[in-house]
Amino acid sequence: MKTLLVTLGDIAGIGPELIVKLFATQPPAPGIRPLVIGDLEILRATAAFLNLPVRFVDEAAGPQADGIAVRSLAHPAPGAFRVGGISAACGDAAYRCFVHAVEECLAGRAHGIVTAPLHKEAMNLAGHAFAGHTDILEKMTGVEGPVMALWHPRLVVSHVTDHLPLRAALDAVTVERVAHVARLTHAALVRAGTPRPRIALAGVNPHAGENGLFGREELDIVRPAMDLLAAEGIETSGPHPGDTVFLQGLRGAFDAVLAMYHDQGFGPMKTLDFANGVNCTLGLPFVRTSPDHGTAFGIAGQGIAEPESMMAAWRLAVRLLEEG
Amino acid sequence: MKTLLVTLGDIAGIGPELIVKLFATQPPAPGIRPLVIGDLEILRATAAFLNLPVRFVDEAAGPQADGIAVRSLAHPAPGAFRVGGISAACGDAAYRCFVHAVEECLAGRAHGIVTAPLHKEAMNLAGHAFAGHTDILEKMTGVEGPVMALWHPRLVVSHVTDHLPLRAALDAVTVERVAHVARLTHAALVRAGTPRPRIALAGVNPHAGENGLFGREELDIVRPAMDLLAAEGIETSGPHPGDTVFLQGLRGAFDAVLAMYHDQGFGPMKTLDFANGVNCTLGLPFVRTSPDHGTAFGIAGQGIAEPESMMAAWRLAVRLLEEG
Repeated sequence: MKTLLVTLGDIAGIGPELIVKLFATQPPAPGIRPLVIGDLEILRATAAFLNLPVRFVDEAAGPQADGIAVRSLAHPAPGAFRVGGISAACGDAAYRCFVHAVEECLAGRAHGIVTAPLHKEAMNLAGHAFAGHTDILEKMTGVEGPVMALWHPRLVVSHVTDHLPLRAALDAVTVERVAHVARLTHAALVRAGTPRPRIALAGVNPHAGENGLFGREELDIVRPAMDLLAAEGIETSGPHPGDTVFLQGLRGAFDAVLAMYHDQGFGPMKTLDFANGVNCTLGLPFVRTSPDHGTAFGIAGQGIAEPESMMAAWRLAVRLLEEG
Repeated sequence: MKTLLVTLGDIAGIGPELIVKLFATQPPAPGIRPLVIGDLEILRATAAFLNLPVRFVDEAAGPQADGIAVRSLAHPAPGAFRVGGISAACGDAAYRCFVHAVEECLAGRAHGIVTAPLHKEAMNLAGHAFAGHTDILEKMTGVEGPVMALWHPRLVVSHVTDHLPLRAALDAVTVERVAHVARLTHAALVRAGTPRPRIALAGVNPHAGENGLFGREELDIVRPAMDLLAAEGIETSGPHPGDTVFLQGLRGAFDAVLAMYHDQGFGPMKTLDFANGVNCTLGLPFVRTSPDHGTAFGIAGQGIAEPESMMAAWRLAVRLLEEG
C-alpha cells in the first residue's frame, strides 16, 4: 500500500472545492491510500456546500474508517478568512501543509503528493520567501534544478530551464543539463507506461538555427547532448524548430518534447486551452503532480471551479506510483 | 483601380495549384485588378489537371479579356523539371518573378503582392543568396527590419525580432524597435478596419519577469516603449506573460500581440493548427501577404493542397488595399 498525499493549497482559493470534486468522482485506486493534508472541518463544509456525497474522516479513525482520511493542521476557522482574498494566515497554512507533506515523503511514510494551488503572495506575506512549490521542493530535497514537465494527455513537455531570466536561461542550457532533463523525462515516461518513449528536442534558435545560420546552440549543445544520450541507449530526435515541434508531437510523432526555456514550452501548450493538463516535477525522490492553474481567487467559493486538471494530476500520480 | 500581383513561387511546389484554386473560388474584388507574375502555360495546365473552371489570359490581351491576367516570365517547360524536386531552374524562376513584382510595386505600377511559397534551397542553388522573401524585400526596398506579422482571423501577432539567433534577438529588442513595431501594427490594424486596436505587448522573460525577479527587459525596455507610444496616442497593454497572452488574445481580449522574438509568437500560433493564417510584412511602401506554409514538395502535383491560407492571404491584401 502506498500513501498519496493531497495538499489543500490556499483555502481562500479553489483548492478545497477541487479536492471534494476529485474524491466525489474518482474511484479508489487499488494499492493507493489517499491522505489529505489540510483541515477536516473545511473539507466537510465544502462537501456540504457543494452537496456532494463524499465522506472525509479524521486520519485518527484508522484505516478501517469509511471515507477519505484527512490529517488536520491548524487553519483559519471558517469565517476568519475572506474567500478569494490574499491573507498571511491562509498563505501560512498552505505552506505548512506542503512542508509537512514533503517531510512525510522524505521520511518514507508517504510516496507522492498532489498539490492544490497555493498563492505565492499570500505565502510571502506570511514570511515564507519562495516563488512556489518547486522552490520549496528544491530547498527541502536538496535536488538541484528539479524539472517542470507539463503532462498533456497526448504530449509531455519537459523544460530544460524554467524560472530564470531568458538570458540566464540561455546560459543554463548546457550539454549536461539537456542530457539530465532527457534522462528524467525518459524515466518518467517509462514509469508511466511508455516503454520506448519517442523524445524530441527543440532547438534554442528560430528554425532550430538552420544549421548555424541563426545561432550555434543546436550544434554546440543540443547535438552533443543527443550523442551522449544515444551512447547511454536513450534515442532522441532533433534539434527541431521550436515553432513546429509541439504540433508534430500533439499529432503523434513524439511522446515528449524538451523545451529549452520556459515560454518555448509553456507558450504553445497553454495557448491550446486544454482543461486537463498536469504539472509534474521530475527528479525528486518521490512523485509530485499538480493542476496547471492557480488558486483562481476570482471564482473561489462559487462552486464553479473545473476539477479536470486536478483529477488528471491525481490519476497521473496514481499511475506513476503503480508502475514505480 | 489597384493592381495586386500574385507570384507563382517555386513551380515544383504547390504554388500554381494554390493560385488556380484561389481564382477558381474567389469572386472579383471591386477596384482590384489581379495580375499573376509567372507562366501562363503552367497555370493553364494546372487548371486543366485540377479540372477547375478558371480562365487565365495573357496580360497582352488587354483589360477587356475575360479571365485572370498573367505576365509570363521564362520558366522551365513542363517536363523539364521534376515536381516536388529542388532545382536551380525553378528556384531562379521563382526569384525572378518575385524581384519583378517588387520592382513593379516600387515603380508604382502595382500596389501589393501575394506570394506563393518559394524554396530557399532551390533559390540559393540558383545563386541567389537570400533566406526568403523578407530578405529580398529588405534589400530591394531599403527598409531596415521589416516586420513579420502573423494574421490569424482572431489575432494579429507581430514579431519585434525574427530570424536572429535568440541571443542576438534579445540584444535587438530595444525601446525604439518595440515602439516601431507597435506603430506599424497599429497602422496596419487601422487600415484593415479596426479603428482602435487593442495591442498587447509580451514580456521577454518567464511570467513577464515578475517585476524584475526574472529579468529586467520588461522594466527597462517594454514599459518605456509603452510610455513612448502612449505619448503618441497609441495605447497598449502589458508587459504580459508570453505563455498566456496569446490565449487571452484569441479569446478576444486583444486585437494584436507583439511577440519579442520568433518562437515566442510563432510557437503558440503554429501549435494551434489553423488552416487560414497569413503572413503579412509590415513597414513596406506596399502591401505584401503570403500563406503561412512552404512549398510542400511532398504533396506537389497531387491536387490535394489546401488553399485556405493562400485565399486568406489574398483576402487580407485586398482588404489592406481597399482601405489604404
